[in-house]
Amino acid sequence: MTLLIAVTWDPQPWVERFKKHLPKHDVAVLGHGDFDRSRIRYVATWGPKPGSLSDLPALEAIFSLGAGVDHLMGYQGLPDVPIVRVAQDDLTHRMSEYVVLHCLMHLRDQRRFDAAQRAKQWDQERSPPIASEVRVGVMGSGVLGQDAARKLKVMGFDVAAWSRSPKNGDGYRIYSGDDGLAEFLARTDILVSLLPLTPETRGILNRRLFEKLARDGQLDGPILINAGRGGLQVEEDIVACLDDGTLKAATLDVFQVEPLPQDSPFWTHPQVTVTPHNSAVSDPEMTARYIADQIRRHEAGEPFQNVVDRKRGY
Amino acid sequence: MTLLIAVTWDPQPWVERFKKHLPKHDVAVLGHGDFDRSRIRYVATWGPKPGSLSDLPALEAIFSLGAGVDHLMGYQGLPDVPIVRVAQDDLTHRMSEYVVLHCLMHLRDQRRFDAAQRAKQWDQERSPPIASEVRVGVMGSGVLGQDAARKLKVMGFDVAAWSRSPKNGDGYRIYSGDDGLAEFLARTDILVSLLPLTPETRGILNRRLFEKLARDGQLDGPILINAGRGGLQVEEDIVACLDDGTLKAATLDVFQVEPLPQDSPFWTHPQVTVTPHNSAVSDPEMTARYIADQIRRHEAGEPFQNVVDRKRGY
Repeated sequence: MTLLIAVTWDPQPWVERFKKHLPKHDVAVLGHGDFDRSRIRYVATWGPKPGSLSDLPALEAIFSLGAGVDHLMGYQGLPDVPIVRVAQDDLTHRMSEYVVLHCLMHLRDQRRFDAAQRAKQWDQERSPPIASEVRVGVMGSGVLGQDAARKLKVMGFDVAAWSRSPKNGDGYRIYSGDDGLAEFLARTDILVSLLPLTPETRGILNRRLFEKLARDGQLDGPILINAGRGGLQVEEDIVACLDDGTLKAATLDVFQVEPLPQDSPFWTHPQVTVTPHNSAVSDPEMTARYIADQIRRHEAGEPFQNVVDRKRGY
Repeated sequence: MTLLIAVTWDPQPWVERFKKHLPKHDVAVLGHGDFDRSRIRYVATWGPKPGSLSDLPALEAIFSLGAGVDHLMGYQGLPDVPIVRVAQDDLTHRMSEYVVLHCLMHLRDQRRFDAAQRAKQWDQERSPPIASEVRVGVMGSGVLGQDAARKLKVMGFDVAAWSRSPKNGDGYRIYSGDDGLAEFLARTDILVSLLPLTPETRGILNRRLFEKLARDGQLDGPILINAGRGGLQVEEDIVACLDDGTLKAATLDVFQVEPLPQDSPFWTHPQVTVTPHNSAVSDPEMTARYIADQIRRHEAGEPFQNVVDRKRGY
């Protein structure tokens, strides 16, 4: 039984990780030497090249080597086998660190105090509001969104979430569907996007949406934090909305093009914090262990966990 | 029955707040017009002038108008009545916001990514550790320390605390006394100081202490966050320890002299974040309400809450 690695990066570290965690399996690498296609049972991949996953008659599952599967959903002729997402606690916790950090930075107006420090100003003019006075709205209510919402609540924020389909929040309200969206946005001071990228969500973070955010909050205007996918955001709209006051500030971890091009206005925009798509970097060691566990579950007759719903696209 | 306000700032807003919350009491202001000293039952004060609190024969309690009572403890001839600290939930929650924000900023190496943004660098070189790999040590285990420790734990940090006297932590270890201190420091990557200022704690944040912090952690050296009092820290030691690598970074909200003097090296030190003593600004409205509640409790025959232990000094 063979696991095939299909990545655009150096595959060697992955070969070693999988050999360690799956000592009884063979490991092959696409594009590196010959292998028997009829023996490939599993593929571990990120951004597979067109056509590379065809003609694998014994294939039983495809594993995504990172969070999110949008890199697979656009793949033409994706084999009809379960696609398994990586859902590690680590990844979830890291994302929540990022979300809570950046919500607190906006709450506590850290950029104002950074500027005051540069100017050697002891700025006691106006105290920031307390978390309970600030409404955070989390878009996306999967494992990541739920963990972030819970921790934001512990920090005292007034939290709500939005989900495509109706759900119950654990101590906070989850708005749902198109009808719920406008109501959700109207009560949101800090919008946290943790949405998956699907045909329905592409470009959802645009001027029409930003204009529906609350304008009666304690932070002098709505704030966007996007730690989901770059394809969710219309970048020209973000810049224009920051400049005309529709948005007060933005923290962006993901971009339409990554690495963020040198001529992007985000790098130097005074109201924008750029991070290099590191909100929740999966630990490769943990990812390999997770996939090995899933393979062992499967071979022991148990179902895979976190199988992608192809219709929803995540 | 009269409440006397003794402050070094404009007293008028306090007069209005107390008149609103204590409509049946008279309110007098020290240094503003005459008043009958024999009718003063309560004093609400911050940094009273020497001698100003003598000769108040009917005095029943002194209320501190901010967190901490070190401004009173140095007062010669402090009347022998209960001194009541302000302990509002708001103040506690704000302090925890500050502590969690700055622990997360250090965990996630936010200053490195700020610098990368200024240089337009997409820095994916090295991922920060996850919170569970980083040991936070909270010095001070009163209301503030306990709330901060609990929230740091929710965020995933490996938390311990230190307290002068033995205590049990809620899901984390509290080291105590001089013996426990060395052990506590040896397991601490991020030291959070929330200590009260007393003769025993003055200057406790010095080179000898910093040298005992963990040097085997995930953050390339120990980090100091002081949100307690400026008098706790030896500022020359902090600068020297940052420069020789004994400390990696510091976030300071309090200083020996406030406002921080223009010639302080902290303003421009690349490893230092300065905030203007705003980690937990008490909301004057909430403070007035708290004091009014305490007075009503007292007049209904109930004991005051959060009475200062004069021997301990907090």
